[in-house]
Amino acid sequence: MHISVETRKPAVVLLSGGLDSATTLAIASQDYVVYAMSFRYGQRHSIELECAARIAIAAGVTLHRIVDIDLRGTGGSALTDEIDVPKDRLQSEIESGIPVTYVPARNTIFLSYALGWAEVLGSQDIFIGINALDYSGYPDCRPEYVEAFERMANLATKAGVEGRLRLEIHAPLIAMTKADIIRTGLLLGVDYSLTHSCYDPAPGGLACGRCDSCQLRLRGFREAGLADPIRYAPRE
Amino acid sequence: MHISVETRKPAVVLLSGGLDSATTLAIASQDYVVYAMSFRYGQRHSIELECAARIAIAAGVTLHRIVDIDLRGTGGSALTDEIDVPKDRLQSEIESGIPVTYVPARNTIFLSYALGWAEVLGSQDIFIGINALDYSGYPDCRPEYVEAFERMANLATKAGVEGRLRLEIHAPLIAMTKADIIRTGLLLGVDYSLTHSCYDPAPGGLACGRCDSCQLRLRGFREAGLADPIRYAPRE
Repeated sequence: MHISVETRKPAVVLLSGGLDSATTLAIASQDYVVYAMSFRYGQRHSIELECAARIAIAAGVTLHRIVDIDLRGTGGSALTDEIDVPKDRLQSEIESGIPVTYVPARNTIFLSYALGWAEVLGSQDIFIGINALDYSGYPDCRPEYVEAFERMANLATKAGVEGRLRLEIHAPLIAMTKADIIRTGLLLGVDYSLTHSCYDPAPGGLACGRCDSCQLRLRGFREAGLADPIRYAPRE
Repeated sequence: MHISVETRKPAVVLLSGGLDSATTLAIASQDYVVYAMSFRYGQRHSIELECAARIAIAAGVTLHRIVDIDLRGTGGSALTDEIDVPKDRLQSEIESGIPVTYVPARNTIFLSYALGWAEVLGSQDIFIGINALDYSGYPDCRPEYVEAFERMANLATKAGVEGRLRLEIHAPLIAMTKADIIRTGLLLGVDYSLTHSCYDPAPGGLACGRCDSCQLRLRGFREAGLADPIRYAPRE
């Protein structure tokens, strides 16, 4: 008789359905039992949650939890409001300043939910697929932000205060280029055809190929010398 | 013709419907235009949100926003799960250790939502009615936690990073006794008959008088030499 005993520790992984979080999930799965967490936050499109569910199943996570939250009342972003998503911007435009697709306090809210779940699971590891290079305009994608959140989190929780757990926020992609992220994911067996990056998909879910997120993704595959396996809407 | 121009700055105030947050709201209202924020987070009782709404109206806030969030899936607290609320505990028991009514990461999640709203409003002031004395067992009610959150928040937001705003988390009650909180609130005109503190109210909303929260409240009124204006369930 063979009895298999799970010796890996649990980790909470934030999963958006995009290329970065799918890669992060694959990295975490090497060493942890994964609890994946996604959010329904008034996105204009549900396709990212469908992608998140498929990625979670393909990765064999222990549990995939979709949390309903409403950021629409807060307002202020093209991803949740009726603001136009910018298209065909130059690389220099994408890299400079904070885009209209920035959602106020989004990563802080997501990490806070992950913190609560980690505490209940007795987990001391949270993974988030943020990247400081591609999205230099997002304040909550920088290493100093992640460190400050980690410090706060260790003062916020019963486990942290009692010294039972030292919580760590892992952001393994933070300093990687998109091409490096794609290469890493492929080595770990990520199926990028399951992922979704577009801010403004066409009916049927086809990626537009023109928003900042599509452009960064396409450039990443180009620089890695690979073809992006997802389908794009034909150019008008 | 008289034209009144609002020169006060906006502030986001977290409002639970309890005695502490009602007092905090009154303190904030002296100097700020108040945007009150409450949460429907799977509480076992809706009476606290009804109280929050009445307090917000009485205080004449600009906007009272009730945000729907679900902490129940996270589990682990007597306030949201089917765990019994402890009754008739001694003062020494209330003050020692972290109670089962602790909700993992709750204040962090609440402050994160407030942060997002503050950013959209262009506000640099968030008020929270936490108290380190009565609830010494709650890690996220201590000054070092508030400071760490504030530091993280200023790294998280567009406004903070661009140097346009320096966000401040105000916790005016943090070092006050319950009796001092009550005295302060009465001076500012708070109607404590509108507030609700009980963790486990009887049918009809009567406070139990026996849970930790009721005991702390009753002791506060006693020490202030005043009668609590709310009604309590008769002792069995």
